[in-house]
Amino acid sequence: MSKPAKSFFLIVLSFIAAVAFAPVNPLICFSIKSCQNIHILERLVALGAGMDVVSGGELYRAIRAGVDPAKVVYAGVGKTDPEIIQALDAGIGWFNVESEAELANLCTIAAGRRQQMRVALRVNPDVDPKTHRHTTTGKKETKFGVDLERARRVFEQFGRDPWARLRGIHLHIGSPVFQAEPYVEAIGKALGLIEQLRRDGFAIDTLNIGGGYAAGYRDDQTPTFESYARKIVPMLAGSGLRIILEPGRSIAANAGILVTRTQFVKQGGDKQFVIVDGAMTDLIRPALYDAFHFAWPVRCDERFVPPSRGADLALPGTVEVDVVGPVCESSDYLAKGRHLPPVQRGDLIAVFTAGAYGFVMASHYNSRPNAAEVLVTGDQMRTIRRRETYEDLTKAEENL
Amino acid sequence: MSKPAKSFFLIVLSFIAAVAFAPVNPLICFSIKSCQNIHILERLVALGAGMDVVSGGELYRAIRAGVDPAKVVYAGVGKTDPEIIQALDAGIGWFNVESEAELANLCTIAAGRRQQMRVALRVNPDVDPKTHRHTTTGKKETKFGVDLERARRVFEQFGRDPWARLRGIHLHIGSPVFQAEPYVEAIGKALGLIEQLRRDGFAIDTLNIGGGYAAGYRDDQTPTFESYARKIVPMLAGSGLRIILEPGRSIAANAGILVTRTQFVKQGGDKQFVIVDGAMTDLIRPALYDAFHFAWPVRCDERFVPPSRGADLALPGTVEVDVVGPVCESSDYLAKGRHLPPVQRGDLIAVFTAGAYGFVMASHYNSRPNAAEVLVTGDQMRTIRRRETYEDLTKAEENL
Repeated sequence: MSKPAKSFFLIVLSFIAAVAFAPVNPLICFSIKSCQNIHILERLVALGAGMDVVSGGELYRAIRAGVDPAKVVYAGVGKTDPEIIQALDAGIGWFNVESEAELANLCTIAAGRRQQMRVALRVNPDVDPKTHRHTTTGKKETKFGVDLERARRVFEQFGRDPWARLRGIHLHIGSPVFQAEPYVEAIGKALGLIEQLRRDGFAIDTLNIGGGYAAGYRDDQTPTFESYARKIVPMLAGSGLRIILEPGRSIAANAGILVTRTQFVKQGGDKQFVIVDGAMTDLIRPALYDAFHFAWPVRCDERFVPPSRGADLALPGTVEVDVVGPVCESSDYLAKGRHLPPVQRGDLIAVFTAGAYGFVMASHYNSRPNAAEVLVTGDQMRTIRRRETYEDLTKAEENL
Repeated sequence: MSKPAKSFFLIVLSFIAAVAFAPVNPLICFSIKSCQNIHILERLVALGAGMDVVSGGELYRAIRAGVDPAKVVYAGVGKTDPEIIQALDAGIGWFNVESEAELANLCTIAAGRRQQMRVALRVNPDVDPKTHRHTTTGKKETKFGVDLERARRVFEQFGRDPWARLRGIHLHIGSPVFQAEPYVEAIGKALGLIEQLRRDGFAIDTLNIGGGYAAGYRDDQTPTFESYARKIVPMLAGSGLRIILEPGRSIAANAGILVTRTQFVKQGGDKQFVIVDGAMTDLIRPALYDAFHFAWPVRCDERFVPPSRGADLALPGTVEVDVVGPVCESSDYLAKGRHLPPVQRGDLIAVFTAGAYGFVMASHYNSRPNAAEVLVTGDQMRTIRRRETYEDLTKAEENL
C-alpha cells in the first residue's frame, strides 16, 4: 500500500567557495533554510562552513551535521524561550536580534543563566532589493530588524548589557538580489552606523552582511560571486570588522534539480498540458512566487539540446505546453507557457535550480509523501533522504 | 532537543449533514484533501460518509479510517499506475477521469486484470465560479476534465468498454464558490449532455456534482447548504441519476481553528507587528491565496468581544496590526492590517476557519515540526495528532 509518486530530487553538490570574498576573510554561514539535508550540511561543515539557522529545528540539524557551534548564527523574528535555551546550551556564536522586545527577553534569559552571548542587531537599511514582494525583507515596515535611526537608541538601551553582549550589526535585504548595488547601499549605511556607534563608545566587532545572493534561474541573469565581491570587498577591507556572510540559495539552488516523470499529455481547450508526477508539494516556488524554473526533458533529440536556460527558447519543432502536477488545484504547475520538445508518457523532465527552497518547502498536501533526495558526486549516486511511505504520513495520528 | 513551536490545531468537529440535499438521496463523499486526519475521517465514516480521494495517500487514509470502499470516488489528473492498481485492489466505487489519455490507460489496466470499474468523465462546463484564479478548476484551458463538446467524442471512443464502464459525469467548478448560480449553470449543461449521451445509447446512471461549497471565512459571506440546495435539488429530482456530492471545505473549515501564541509585539516603522509562533508552515492560505482568516485573541475584555467575524471591525480601543509568523519571509503572515485588542507576549490568538486547507497544506519549512491536532467534542478534548519532534523531521535522512 506504500507506493508514493516517482519524483525525486537529484542533488549535485557544488560548493562554490566564496574565494571572491577571501580578502576580508569572512565566516561563511550556510543558510540552512535553503537546503537542510543533513548529508549536504555535513559536506559543507567539512569544507569549513558555519551555519545560519532560524529555528530550533535548524539548529538541531546543524548540530547533528557536526558544525562547530561557535560558527552558528541564529536569526529569526520569533525565537521561543525553549529555542533560545537550546541555542545557549549548544553554545552558538551569535544571536541576530530583530526587535527590542526580543533583545529584552534575551538579556533576561542570559542574566538568569549568568551566561554571556554575542548579539548582532539586525538593521533595516531601507534599500529596495528589487525582488519579489514576498521575499523583500530589508525595507522599512517589515517584521524584520529595526530601522537605522532606531538602532542607536537600541544600543543606548541595551548596548552595555554584561550578558547579552551587543557587538554586531546584521543586514539582510531580501532574496534573490541580482545586483551588487543594493548590497553596496546597505553596507554603506551600516558602516556609517557602526562609525557612529563606535563614537558613542560601543565596541562593534562584527558585521554580518547577510545573504540573498541570486542563483542562476536563467543563464542571462546569473551574477557571479566575483561580481558581488568586486564592489563589496573594497568597502570592508581594513574595517577591522569580523565579516559574516549567509549565502544559501547561491550555493544550493543550482546544485539541485527536480526530476519528474510524465504521466499524461493532454489537450485542454487550445492548450497542451504535460501532467507530471512532481507537484507544488515538491516545489512550491512557481505557485507561491510565480517563480521561473527552467524545465526540459532529461533525454532529447540532438536538435533539441537547449543552447541556454532561457525563459522561452522556442526551438523549431517544439510545442508550447504547461508542465503541471497532479494536485487538485490550478496553482499546481512547475512551468507555464514553455516551448518543449514533444514529450510522451514516461518521459523524465528535469526542473532546474531546485536545490534551494525546493525540498525544504515541501508539503504533504493531497497526502503526497515527500520525494527522495539523491546526492551525486562524480559518477556516484547515493540516497541521502529516503522516499516517504504512506505510513510515515499517518504515524503521528496512530497510538495516541 | 525536541521543543517545537507551540501552535496547535483545535478541531471542533461539526458535521453539517447535507439534509438540504436529502430529496435527491445523494452519496456524500467527503473531500479528504481539505482535512485528512484519520480520526476525523472515522467520525465521518460513522455518520455514513463516503470519501473523495485524489491520491494513493488519501486512499490509504480513507481505507485506514474504515470507509466502505464502494463509497470512494478517486479524482485527480495524474493517477499513477501503482495508485490505480491500489484503488482496484481496494474495490473503490468510481474513478473520475480527466483526460482521454488517462481513460485509455484505465481501460488497458482494467482489461489486463479482467476487472470491471465504474468511471465518471469529468467535464468542464466552462462557467466562472468567481473564485481565486488558483482554485478555479471548471473553466476551459485548465488541466482538469474535458470540454463539454469533447465529452461526446470521448463517449464514442471509450463509452462501450466492457471493463472501464463509463457511466457517470463528474463536475467540479472550483472552490470556494459563494453562490448557487455557477452550480445551476454547470448542472444545466451536464444534464443537457446526459440527455444527448442517453440518446446516443449510453447508459448514464451517475452525476457527481462535485464540491467547492463555501465556508464562513466572514460572517457576511457564508451561504448555507440550504441556499445551494434550494436551486440545485429541483434540477435533479426525478432525473433517475445517482447523485454524488464532494463537500470538504464546507464541512471542515469552520470546524477548526488555529491557536497560536504571541511571542513579541513589535513596532516596525509605522506598523505594529504581532509576532506569533504559528506560521505559513501551519496555514499557508494567506501567503498563497491572499486568503482572509478572521483572527482574534482567545481571551479579551468584554468590550472587545467581536460582534461578528468581519474583515475589519475597528472597535474603539483596538490597534491596527499585522499578525505574522516567525518564518524568514515577508509572505509569512496570518492576518494583515487588522484592528485587534491590544495583545502582549504570551497571549493566545485564534485564527478561524482553519479546519480545511490548513493542516493538510502544512510544511516543514524552516525545519518547523508540524503542530498537534486536538479534537474537541462537547467539553472533552483529545489529541488526534501528536506534535512532531525534531527527530521526526530528520528520520528519513538517517540509517540509509
